[in-house]
Amino acid sequence: MADQFPATLCSTEPSGQQPAAMAVAQIAESALTGEGVTSAVAFREWFAERQRQNVAEVRQVPLNEMPGWNIEAGTGNIVHESGRFFSVEGVDVRLASGPWQSWSQPMIFQQEVGTLGIIVKRLGGVLHFLMQAKNEPGNHNGVQLSPTVQATRSNYTRVHRGQAVPYVEYFQQAHRHRLLTDVLQSEQGSWFYRKRNRNMVVEVEEDVEARDNFCWLTLGQIHRLLAEDDMVNMDARTVLGCLPFAGEGAALPAVRLDEGLRSALVRSCHAESGGLHSMTAIRRWLNDQRVMTEIRTRPTPLNEVAGWERSEEVVEHEDRRFFRVIGVDVRSGSREVKQWTQPMVQPCGQGLIAFLVARFDGVLHALVNARSQPGFLDGVELAPTVQCTPSNYLPGPRPAHLRYLDHVLDAPADRIVFDSVHSEEGGRFHHARNRYLIVELDNGPGRVEETLLDDSFRWVTLHQLAALLRHSYYVNVEARNLTACLHSLFGTTEEFSG
Amino acid sequence: MADQFPATLCSTEPSGQQPAAMAVAQIAESALTGEGVTSAVAFREWFAERQRQNVAEVRQVPLNEMPGWNIEAGTGNIVHESGRFFSVEGVDVRLASGPWQSWSQPMIFQQEVGTLGIIVKRLGGVLHFLMQAKNEPGNHNGVQLSPTVQATRSNYTRVHRGQAVPYVEYFQQAHRHRLLTDVLQSEQGSWFYRKRNRNMVVEVEEDVEARDNFCWLTLGQIHRLLAEDDMVNMDARTVLGCLPFAGEGAALPAVRLDEGLRSALVRSCHAESGGLHSMTAIRRWLNDQRVMTEIRTRPTPLNEVAGWERSEEVVEHEDRRFFRVIGVDVRSGSREVKQWTQPMVQPCGQGLIAFLVARFDGVLHALVNARSQPGFLDGVELAPTVQCTPSNYLPGPRPAHLRYLDHVLDAPADRIVFDSVHSEEGGRFHHARNRYLIVELDNGPGRVEETLLDDSFRWVTLHQLAALLRHSYYVNVEARNLTACLHSLFGTTEEFSG
Repeated sequence: MADQFPATLCSTEPSGQQPAAMAVAQIAESALTGEGVTSAVAFREWFAERQRQNVAEVRQVPLNEMPGWNIEAGTGNIVHESGRFFSVEGVDVRLASGPWQSWSQPMIFQQEVGTLGIIVKRLGGVLHFLMQAKNEPGNHNGVQLSPTVQATRSNYTRVHRGQAVPYVEYFQQAHRHRLLTDVLQSEQGSWFYRKRNRNMVVEVEEDVEARDNFCWLTLGQIHRLLAEDDMVNMDARTVLGCLPFAGEGAALPAVRLDEGLRSALVRSCHAESGGLHSMTAIRRWLNDQRVMTEIRTRPTPLNEVAGWERSEEVVEHEDRRFFRVIGVDVRSGSREVKQWTQPMVQPCGQGLIAFLVARFDGVLHALVNARSQPGFLDGVELAPTVQCTPSNYLPGPRPAHLRYLDHVLDAPADRIVFDSVHSEEGGRFHHARNRYLIVELDNGPGRVEETLLDDSFRWVTLHQLAALLRHSYYVNVEARNLTACLHSLFGTTEEFSG
Repeated sequence: MADQFPATLCSTEPSGQQPAAMAVAQIAESALTGEGVTSAVAFREWFAERQRQNVAEVRQVPLNEMPGWNIEAGTGNIVHESGRFFSVEGVDVRLASGPWQSWSQPMIFQQEVGTLGIIVKRLGGVLHFLMQAKNEPGNHNGVQLSPTVQATRSNYTRVHRGQAVPYVEYFQQAHRHRLLTDVLQSEQGSWFYRKRNRNMVVEVEEDVEARDNFCWLTLGQIHRLLAEDDMVNMDARTVLGCLPFAGEGAALPAVRLDEGLRSALVRSCHAESGGLHSMTAIRRWLNDQRVMTEIRTRPTPLNEVAGWERSEEVVEHEDRRFFRVIGVDVRSGSREVKQWTQPMVQPCGQGLIAFLVARFDGVLHALVNARSQPGFLDGVELAPTVQCTPSNYLPGPRPAHLRYLDHVLDAPADRIVFDSVHSEEGGRFHHARNRYLIVELDNGPGRVEETLLDDSFRWVTLHQLAALLRHSYYVNVEARNLTACLHSLFGTTEEFSG
């Protein structure tokens, strides 16, 4: 809008490389393929069998009764006796937006970078994704679809003395394959302190056998499953959100352009469509927000976190808001039983994660919020239009980032284009569920213009999101998850049921 | 080399924007212009006058005798009474490379993002850079050339009750201008804890008057001045390093291609030239290094930093190596005298910052080192081939990052293509000087191949460096400074002297 100048910084990627159009086209083709080598019926049978096999018994235990985990003398931090994995500690936060706001809270510290990797392979000419049926202790419903690999360096090096992680070699030796996605990203900035995950997608040419817990699905199939509650886990959603789904010169297959929303989505994926703001303007705005939003965080002993109470059982907020830190005992596996204990974060309510979307000149845009969260490495990232747990807020004036909460909650049913409940990372969070909503605003007079007035929000296209997602720490995990949900609107209309 | 696959992720920047070729060409043209609106004689006269006017008296004072600065009870941290500006605190570092290595050290904490901005403007058809003559207390020689603006949010908001920062409005309202560079970058990772600066270059169309302390210079003039010791300050060098100097489709003016090095440099700036490794391969390698190099840092009270001694005067290492934290009293200005005190970091020896460069298929490449430093936000950044203060190291086996120290120190004179001593940021560092060297390896049999064997090093082209430099935290400040020095080899051969 205000930016009339060429986007000098954003259009000179080095060449000496083949164009990305082919990969983008192959991904779009897979998104439009409603059934591949695994039929819907076969998938349901396989998944039901995995639910029978991959059982786990999860029982809450007091924090001070977790073998292998210690309450550190002096600090009260919850640490593993190996010094590895992760810990629960305190963080002091000061936020300078007008008057200084400050609070303390427990957070999960995990300095190891996790690898979230999906293997893709052309089967019958169409890209298929090797998805895993994984039961994690925090999942309220047991098995969910996860990436081919979810591993940390501790897993690689077998600190936990467990079995080798299947398929991990494809990501350790990614140079042998075609790399479609490879980017470090942040995780939940309210619960993780500076946690980073590496999101990877490798395309493999050689034969890859799907083991018992693994299944080849097209992106179209995964997209249909995203419409089901608690089916596709967070680790899978963030990797899918980072796919090069949109880009310059993408030869996207024809879709029924008579469908208004889908047509606007396709245009949003095409770099040639432009957007309301140039990439230079979007990055300048984000840098402005990063300069102006000062957030100061400092690790502090868990014992000294103000406003939080500690018993032998749990750590919880004095108002019983936000979340609790609990201990769990896990027994998993039907044949070879594994048992362990660990601390987990248990949110106190269901969250709401929503994009407002609207068409500008026929191109779909999503409204992102430049938001500060204490766990971010770089202060501010692009978050969804709305990202909150409504029950956390006391009556009274709402914080600025809840500006569009009513637009989402009061949306008429025919404006809701995506609505599913999804679970967050079940390895650290216990029954953490969020309602993911995408609401299309009627871009009539006065409806959308007002959203341009708040300087912590901006309308961006899917191809702009894709460009930002190729680099670290521009887009937060909630917005990456919603991006995957937005992609899912692209697919076939055939129902996917067995 | 090993990577045969299309670089899917790196070549799909969104369009809807004009190509960057024009800006790249204008920058190259300025680099080839040995004299613009300011003649060499006029520059020397102006600079000499600034040296006479911009005087400062800097006197070391004991750390506990600095008005406005407190030694915090309990922690011993050195903090400003306003709670702003910066502080000196301790950091515990644990590095997992093979066996855990650990140490503690003082570091500067500054959560505010600084803005380093240069105004450029076409004068007589050629881009000119508005450079400032600035005397900072740490400069051992008084006045140096600095960016148009060096400011923090405290400066904007006048916490220091000082005068308004001249020209700051061009960067606060950058949307009114053409933005050539806008990127947050790290600072010295050995001395600053997670410090970030915003590097900006704005091209202004409207008339801009050069005030007394400011002077319009072509990039060619600045490049000639980079060959002089302690002339162009660090803040200017990092911004120059982030310029879109190289890129796709750049219509670079003809240079004398008979000159071997310069011809290889020009090819290195062209994206079409390709490189030894694809961008996908370089980013995958950096992500590999980030995953495998675990560095854990934790702020700790300055009083509890092991191996460091504290007197009323200074904080220094028990071996008198590395650096000292000192206090200074500054009286600056010839007419209106300003006076303040502040802590500074004073290195114990002169450092060495060097690129090995070599030609592959006629394209110049620089050897970068994926290096971990405690102040980095994201664990590992690309550093120069050699970056060290030789006197810091005790006799014995050298750390891995010093692998090519002898290649640099033993280089024959005719292989040294750049050799100047530059100062680091004079606002925080006292007499911190580094020798900046660029050594061209003879790419004969056996000379260069061995450098491909060490997995923490990679050969990259200038256009690849430029692509990485458009995003945050890929390239460290020392490598950005050397990149500006590399650019300076591009220019005219006319001497720049008055």
